[in-house]
Amino acid sequence: MMLEEINKVGSLLSYREDIKVMDCTVRDGGLMNDFRFDEEFVKNVYKACVKSGVDYMEFGYKSSKEYFSEDDFGPWKFSKEADLRRIVGDNDTDLKISVMADVGRTNYKEDILPKSESVIDMIRTACYIHQIPSAIEMVNDFHLKGYETSINVMAVSHVNERELDEALHLLGQSNVDIIYLVDSFGHYYPEEIRLLAKKYLDVGEQYNKKIGIHAHNNQQLAFANTIEALTLGISYLDATVSSLGRGAGNCPIELLLGFLKNPKYSLRPMLNVIENDVAKIKEQGIIWGYDVPYMITGQMNMHPRSAMKIVGTPAWGEFTKFYDEIMDED
Amino acid sequence: MMLEEINKVGSLLSYREDIKVMDCTVRDGGLMNDFRFDEEFVKNVYKACVKSGVDYMEFGYKSSKEYFSEDDFGPWKFSKEADLRRIVGDNDTDLKISVMADVGRTNYKEDILPKSESVIDMIRTACYIHQIPSAIEMVNDFHLKGYETSINVMAVSHVNERELDEALHLLGQSNVDIIYLVDSFGHYYPEEIRLLAKKYLDVGEQYNKKIGIHAHNNQQLAFANTIEALTLGISYLDATVSSLGRGAGNCPIELLLGFLKNPKYSLRPMLNVIENDVAKIKEQGIIWGYDVPYMITGQMNMHPRSAMKIVGTPAWGEFTKFYDEIMDED
Repeated sequence: MMLEEINKVGSLLSYREDIKVMDCTVRDGGLMNDFRFDEEFVKNVYKACVKSGVDYMEFGYKSSKEYFSEDDFGPWKFSKEADLRRIVGDNDTDLKISVMADVGRTNYKEDILPKSESVIDMIRTACYIHQIPSAIEMVNDFHLKGYETSINVMAVSHVNERELDEALHLLGQSNVDIIYLVDSFGHYYPEEIRLLAKKYLDVGEQYNKKIGIHAHNNQQLAFANTIEALTLGISYLDATVSSLGRGAGNCPIELLLGFLKNPKYSLRPMLNVIENDVAKIKEQGIIWGYDVPYMITGQMNMHPRSAMKIVGTPAWGEFTKFYDEIMDED
Repeated sequence: MMLEEINKVGSLLSYREDIKVMDCTVRDGGLMNDFRFDEEFVKNVYKACVKSGVDYMEFGYKSSKEYFSEDDFGPWKFSKEADLRRIVGDNDTDLKISVMADVGRTNYKEDILPKSESVIDMIRTACYIHQIPSAIEMVNDFHLKGYETSINVMAVSHVNERELDEALHLLGQSNVDIIYLVDSFGHYYPEEIRLLAKKYLDVGEQYNKKIGIHAHNNQQLAFANTIEALTLGISYLDATVSSLGRGAGNCPIELLLGFLKNPKYSLRPMLNVIENDVAKIKEQGIIWGYDVPYMITGQMNMHPRSAMKIVGTPAWGEFTKFYDEIMDED
């Protein structure tokens, strides 16, 4: 019999001031439609985030036009200041604005303005484990410019434990504000998320960093894993409206807001977005969310790309064929 | 800081011989179509359960024809011996056959044959907490007739703790084999399921009873709650193909089989049923599974009936209206 000790922070009926909800609907959802959202959709998600008491909204990526063409992608691939301001004006609200920068795909030195000239509050840097030194260099730049920062190390379910420990200490020694636990492939069970959360939280305590979680829903565990991580002390919680996001999608923000007890959060404005704006997006034919092929890649600890390739094609429903192909590959 | 200790039984890479998977697809799914499944569907679920190494399959209810008319319901409302045998013959397989009997809605004395004359192996008795003495009386009859038995106390999220403790000790002192933890409304978070699982397991240890779990998916937590309960030692696990079941449905058996490590279990036959038979059922217009109205009743600890009333109607998509009505009611 093995013993797992859960040091709960807070209780089911109270709330913690340190909790921050981060809406990633447009940024993560943009991966499913090349960031081509109607302006009305983005505006309505923004308004709902403000009304719901959500703490941050991530609008998109800060990608370089040297690597990506504006003909191939909508505005939220680049998140230019003018596009942001067309939605939020001067953002005279309590909601903070975030964008994401991928290591190696951004001209951050030129494309990211000093904070004093931007409505952006936070820049999150996404990287793979071998890119951590580059990520730290970027974060140094963002800090000098005046932004809050996070580093989101992706695909940790493909990383060995010794390297992850080393990586976390490197991040601890950097001047990043928040370190994110990311389950890129929707592979982890709650039991594993608790062990990882403890590992990240220990580093956070040692170096005075906040810890966040970004979960994917391949095994219908994104919400469960998010609230388990939160129960242990993780405070930055990524979620999206109606789970909209890459592949199986993310932790549904409507489930998370229903769970959180802080009176500043309100579920109702999000229901409004789901019944109106998300319904329209579905009519446009964007397909995301839990389904068997994503479950299979999640169970197998694989990138969802093989499932994403067949989504919306006749092959999408051929579950045993997909399963057999995946099992042969591995 | 509160401490929760999790006494894990087994590990993520090994398996436990005491685990039993109970498929409830036809029984719980029958609540969504008045038990009118094509014979081919039931046969294919049966075959897949046999091939997948599932331990039990529950076919339906043993309801009394005095209370319910055979004109209003398909065969699995009554689960007559002849109907069962038309699917399973003499059931010359390792799969055991279960049926459910509701307290007060069954003529069990006449309608349930001695085990020697039946292909049924287990009879599960579903009751509300105030019906436990009646359930125990039924279980006594089933035992004398030679069956395995369980008692599934429904709606415990509406029961106070002192009464639940008393109920569990009554069940402990009875001759029932298995006591089921049932989250009828999909209301519980994993943290609560762990506390309840410990409570049920303590009684199970004291009285030598096995413990089962039956979860609903209103908050996308049916799978998470099932594997958390299993990690603590609960051994009878209810699940359904593609989550098919009342309202938001149940723990998806495909996620559960992907989790379990016992080589006797196989996921592939279930994928086959999902891509063929479940796809046909969806075409027939049966609607089930996680959606916002069920999330709301789950969050509010309510029976899903108000959501079930509007499923498939134009009101189904009016999430804020539904939310407002529910909040007014409460």
